Amino acid sequence: MFETIAFDGDDTLWHNEIIFQDTQALLYKMLKPYADEEVILQELSKIERSNLPLFGYGITGFILSMIETALEISGGQIPQAKIQDIINSGKEMLEAPLELLPDVRSTLEELIDSYNLLLISKGDLMHQMNKVELSGLAELFSIIEIVPEKNKHTYKKIFHKHEIMPSSFMMVGNSMRSDILPILEIGGSAVYIPYHVTSHVETIANEDIPSDRFWQLESFQELPQLLSLLHQV
Amino acid sequence: MFETIAFDGDDTLWHNEIIFQDTQALLYKMLKPYADEEVILQELSKIERSNLPLFGYGITGFILSMIETALEISGGQIPQAKIQDIINSGKEMLEAPLELLPDVRSTLEELIDSYNLLLISKGDLMHQMNKVELSGLAELFSIIEIVPEKNKHTYKKIFHKHEIMPSSFMMVGNSMRSDILPILEIGGSAVYIPYHVTSHVETIANEDIPSDRFWQLESFQELPQLLSLLHQV
Repeated sequence: MFETIAFDGDDTLWHNEIIFQDTQALLYKMLKPYADEEVILQELSKIERSNLPLFGYGITGFILSMIETALEISGGQIPQAKIQDIINSGKEMLEAPLELLPDVRSTLEELIDSYNLLLISKGDLMHQMNKVELSGLAELFSIIEIVPEKNKHTYKKIFHKHEIMPSSFMMVGNSMRSDILPILEIGGSAVYIPYHVTSHVETIANEDIPSDRFWQLESFQELPQLLSLLHQV
Repeated sequence: MFETIAFDGDDTLWHNEIIFQDTQALLYKMLKPYADEEVILQELSKIERSNLPLFGYGITGFILSMIETALEISGGQIPQAKIQDIINSGKEMLEAPLELLPDVRSTLEELIDSYNLLLISKGDLMHQMNKVELSGLAELFSIIEIVPEKNKHTYKKIFHKHEIMPSSFMMVGNSMRSDILPILEIGGSAVYIPYHVTSHVETIANEDIPSDRFWQLESFQELPQLLSLLHQV
């Protein structure tokens, strides 16, 4: 049935969003004299979204959006030293140690004998490649693709490049918008494993989901069981 | 003799460095009350180099380095509004129209019948892919690789992935450090076409260059002539 199983990286194999949230908490504290947390979050989201087409999903772009938010919310009153603090917190994000999610390595090792394992990760090329290396998982994947945006178009290109049949392909990820819906749309199957913190740029669309090609799991280690059940059908 | 000719993108096929220089000029003007151009340039280079391993070669990282330079040079006295100006100038860089260097398209079209043409470009994935698309040259290349850093290791991986023999490979680029020296070191050939502005992060090493595998040209359009001469030998 399935030959290829592809995995998202951030918040599927390793923690990522939590680092953004920690840094945002620092911004809230810094801007407390000027506005409430909710107002700050709204402004940050607005600025991030409008910068996304130019800056992409990398941390450097996120730092710039935080600086713009600080200038905007404070009406240009934020002390200059705080701007250096924001940049430094961004550097800390970039240097943050990589932490795998529970059971990731053992589960991949269990699957590697039966499936062709892929990693399809989104974001800044350099930072993502660093993470793949730090994860120690690189040798478990036959193909590693880092893409600037995950949509139908990107996945189709990957399918074409590696001669993958959608019917034999399963994508595992924590983002409905990036990992699940585009794959279902082009005829593949998908397993959604939500991360406990929702992404700062994530919105989940309410769309018709083909139930015979979509499953939701609580944790990574449930994956081999699901696959063996599917193969018994 | 040669089967594959690979091209660098920035400042080989299209203008890039000039956009950085324009933005730097704006920074000099802004920091004129605090320091001389030379001092500013020195500080910016120092900060850029130290940020490079974390930020990579993208424009977002460059903007952050400019902000840090402004804070450092002004001793934290730079007005907050100027920081927004720096961010805006970075956005303008990201939106700058792509301009091909002279004779690029016609030369590639001349070579495409006889050679397998590759594009090997360095930098931020999203921004580089945008540039490839804007260049209108994408369909001329059989393979497009965007890498975070150009060194022996990266090139070897590309050779391996696409089953390229170094002896049949020629790289064309404007950077001795990124395009020429690593290729010569792993047994390939290289053509150096200097750009009229030297990169803000470029240093040219003085190394022994194998003269039978290295050529320097003044302009892109001289390439077909060099190749036909080499094939006559």
